[in-house]
Amino acid sequence: MQCSASESAGLARVVLVADLAGTFVFAIEGALSAIHAGLDLLGILVIAFVASLGGGIARDVLLGAAPPASLRDPRYPLLTAMAAAVAIGLALAHVPLPGLALATLDAAGLALFAVAGTEKSLAHGVNAVTAAMFGMLTAVGGGMARDILLAQVPAVLRADFYATAALAGAIILIIAQRAGLPPRVASIIGGASCFALRMAGVLGHWQLPRVG
Amino acid sequence: MQCSASESAGLARVVLVADLAGTFVFAIEGALSAIHAGLDLLGILVIAFVASLGGGIARDVLLGAAPPASLRDPRYPLLTAMAAAVAIGLALAHVPLPGLALATLDAAGLALFAVAGTEKSLAHGVNAVTAAMFGMLTAVGGGMARDILLAQVPAVLRADFYATAALAGAIILIIAQRAGLPPRVASIIGGASCFALRMAGVLGHWQLPRVG
Amino acid sequence: MQCSASESAGLARVVLVADLAGTFVFAIEGALSAIHAGLDLLGILVIAFVASLGGGIARDVLLGAAPPASLRDPRYPLLTAMAAAVAIGLALAHVPLPGLALATLDAAGLALFAVAGTEKSLAHGVNAVTAAMFGMLTAVGGGMARDILLAQVPAVLRADFYATAALAGAIILIIAQRAGLPPRVASIIGGASCFALRMAGVLGHWQLPRVG
Repeated sequence: MQCSASESAGLARVVLVADLAGTFVFAIEGALSAIHAGLDLLGILVIAFVASLGGGIARDVLLGAAPPASLRDPRYPLLTAMAAAVAIGLALAHVPLPGLALATLDAAGLALFAVAGTEKSLAHGVNAVTAAMFGMLTAVGGGMARDILLAQVPAVLRADFYATAALAGAIILIIAQRAGLPPRVASIIGGASCFALRMAGVLGHWQLPRVG
Repeated sequence: MQCSASESAGLARVVLVADLAGTFVFAIEGALSAIHAGLDLLGILVIAFVASLGGGIARDVLLGAAPPASLRDPRYPLLTAMAAAVAIGLALAHVPLPGLALATLDAAGLALFAVAGTEKSLAHGVNAVTAAMFGMLTAVGGGMARDILLAQVPAVLRADFYATAALAGAIILIIAQRAGLPPRVASIIGGASCFALRMAGVLGHWQLPRVG
Repeated sequence: MQCSASESAGLARVVLVADLAGTFVFAIEGALSAIHAGLDLLGILVIAFVASLGGGIARDVLLGAAPPASLRDPRYPLLTAMAAAVAIGLALAHVPLPGLALATLDAAGLALFAVAGTEKSLAHGVNAVTAAMFGMLTAVGGGMARDILLAQVPAVLRADFYATAALAGAIILIIAQRAGLPPRVASIIGGASCFALRMAGVLGHWQLPRVG
């Protein structure tokens, strides 16, 4: 698999922008959950941070890439604090949040994180099974940590077609790369698949089966 | 302490087989808990993975040996998915699970994980107190993570003679090594002690004391 | 920033004593929570360990400094076991614990951990934002892990002026260092600020605002 230096730099920039945009969306959602759960100002900041950066931090620790990328760059934590401020503003102004717009932004964040997480794991040389799981972990790990801190069973384990869309996008990305597509094209196909599957799940009220 | 190359290779093979067998037993038990808690298909897969591999992953991260061994080898996550499939089959077929047989397999998994975890920690050069704690962590960490994901106080902290058997086995293994026994013999003594203590605890309904 | 060898050794000794003293106080408090929650003897030992060492362990793993310092030195886990024994003795003897004395010791532990955590993070070369967050994590991470194990929303996220005092102390320490004060003086100023803020919060019943 060949990859020119400029393509590699372009890919690095796409991953950075994806990370920042996904972080902002997930931090706003995390802060809104914390406000809803009655946490205080510090709790809102911590949940915004954990919900948006927790998945990538877990991935980096498991990859052996500590300190995590999002803690080496002060823009990430400061971005989550800004998102928490926006969420507090929205809550205080009683702005009605349009459900579908929020779900669309969330699906975009899910796809961006799944792609960035899978890319980074492959770049660290882990096997394909682990890279796909780390793509999913990057996308849903923050939300799981948020739910654990709120003393709830993580929503992704019991409802909705959510983590499954992230895992499918990660697997499709890896298959596309193995089939010889250029990395950037494989990332776009994987991310678009994750986004499309998640939106189909939202609009079609998909649920995974339960047993018994 | 001397150890020939072939003995060392034999020990490595025993540790690998112990890890795979323990993983399978703990993954089936984890999947059954997830089915019982009403999680969906993805939740069952995640809990089977976490319950069986979570202890070893925590140990490897704490040892500074990331990426964890079980994520470098795709057989481990695939094995937990197979175990989840078996558990789903058992649940759908309403196969009555014989309690004592399950407790015996679980005690074997506990002993295997405690031995493998203590061995690996000693091989990484940590002190004896930490190696014994990491042996216990390897054996019960996955079950604790499973309980946290199910929003419950980990069972090992409040009931049964379970983690204590793992800790005792780890301590006995270390004392046997320090007394000059060959590593393989020390491992067998430690593992057999853990298994015997756990089974005595099951049959005798042992409980650790509470305070007040 | 210059720092003579003897000053550096003195700073190292201050950090060690601070760590040991803070560990003992937090372990006693953790063990008392576990006794109150009805955990068994092993659960009391585990919660004493996690409540006192969990914050520093999380910091070291995130810094990429595994195995964590507190696990390389067997005195730390043994100290938490001693603290658990003291807590059990206090509970069995029904010794009435003076609330203000306990709150004062806890505030001292908070300040000591926040200072030690910020110092260590700066020494590892992380940026100032992350160092301040890691100072707070060192101080409150163990208590958060204790609450998660007890299946509760961490108290620091919803009540009291506690984590905020640790964060403020860490920020003040970093500003004092940047302003050119000698490291030891900066540490004393940061720690004293954390302690004073926490005690003011206790005596004045400070709460952070909630939203909506």
